[in-house]
Amino acid sequence: MLSKSQLKLITSLKHKKFRQQYGFFVVEGVKTITELLQSSLELQTLFTTQTFNIDAKNEVLISDAELKRISFLTTPNKALAVFKIPTPKPIEDKGLIIALDAIRDPGNLGTIVRLCDWFGVKDLVCSNETVDCYNPKVIQATMGSITRVNISYLNLVEFLKDSSMPVYGAFMEGENIYKKTNLKDGILIMGNEANGISKEVEAFVKEKVSIPRFGSLQQTESLNVATATAILLSEFRRC
Amino acid sequence: MLSKSQLKLITSLKHKKFRQQYGFFVVEGVKTITELLQSSLELQTLFTTQTFNIDAKNEVLISDAELKRISFLTTPNKALAVFKIPTPKPIEDKGLIIALDAIRDPGNLGTIVRLCDWFGVKDLVCSNETVDCYNPKVIQATMGSITRVNISYLNLVEFLKDSSMPVYGAFMEGENIYKKTNLKDGILIMGNEANGISKEVEAFVKEKVSIPRFGSLQQTESLNVATATAILLSEFRRC
Repeated sequence: MLSKSQLKLITSLKHKKFRQQYGFFVVEGVKTITELLQSSLELQTLFTTQTFNIDAKNEVLISDAELKRISFLTTPNKALAVFKIPTPKPIEDKGLIIALDAIRDPGNLGTIVRLCDWFGVKDLVCSNETVDCYNPKVIQATMGSITRVNISYLNLVEFLKDSSMPVYGAFMEGENIYKKTNLKDGILIMGNEANGISKEVEAFVKEKVSIPRFGSLQQTESLNVATATAILLSEFRRC
Repeated sequence: MLSKSQLKLITSLKHKKFRQQYGFFVVEGVKTITELLQSSLELQTLFTTQTFNIDAKNEVLISDAELKRISFLTTPNKALAVFKIPTPKPIEDKGLIIALDAIRDPGNLGTIVRLCDWFGVKDLVCSNETVDCYNPKVIQATMGSITRVNISYLNLVEFLKDSSMPVYGAFMEGENIYKKTNLKDGILIMGNEANGISKEVEAFVKEKVSIPRFGSLQQTESLNVATATAILLSEFRRC
């Protein structure tokens, strides 16, 4: 049975402001919730139409109609859980780090989190202008990877100023990534969907890299930032 | 000014059945429409809130309120055009061909069309179970690339039976793509989001390839099919 205050809390968690105020976020679907329950994330409450057989204190059985009222999805998927937003761990100054300069699309961020997980990137650094990773659409797109990647929001310029690692940036007019034989661990910056990497951040880039185009010259569009991240990460890892 | 029959036609084009019946599809947004107007696609009618200065016969000036009524988007973008669905060209038995076995997500198909365009893949072959490429969500995701890739829907098993090209398939347990030095032009098959490549199609695969995972063993998820296509296409082209 769902209380009025629970309904109000969950509905408010659609908005970044309230996620930050309460320190909670929402996850939906049995598969992803099960994965998150096995992680270090702390469950606040699990609302479900069938029991998960976990600590009863945190589990609230609800009807399909109640799930429909709290779900952010058009087709609710049996359960909705509220988890505590974890405190990010300190960023390690080693390995390959992905830095995002104002990525706005939740689907893109979700895909990039999943790619970081796949390619063993421990730290994902997001400029404060990047979409919130606890946005429900991002959470749906990460498929549980969110628990295995350390995501920090910060002032990207200050972060780069303080780092001693090599800094790579993805640019349309960068060096052909396939011809670079000395890709090292460092920070790889991916820019905003419409405007790319901002001028202030570009100032810290030591090596501009790009993915060559093989199609006709007629083409004007760039690759989507998530697919570009996939290809660049693959290039760093295949060395 | 929008007529009742125009409103009815456009609304019906949300559905594959009516797109196939009438032979039309819908494109939205000034940028993508402008790109499509410069292609070989045939315009049926352009509904716009400000003139494009094209042949007046095909342009209908409408109000913002009218655009809102016909648009498939939550935030309509100044114009909506109805184009004729082109007849696919014959598939050339050369170069690199991407074949999709029942891809269901419109965003994934749109991203793959865009990748084909970027990497100079002329023919994209879709099993009849694959989502329709004239679905409005696919069209939005392709960003105009749809005009530069020849997309054919067919019985994939029959197509593979008749082809003499090498057949590659993406599998979780395939050979490490980074270790393959002899990738040749051929057909690369990507499978359904949930079930991968079907048994009937798998029978035609000569070389199974996979993208190695670099993260922790804890991970259970595969890469999203669109990002996997990005990485595999990149590997075929970088040779």
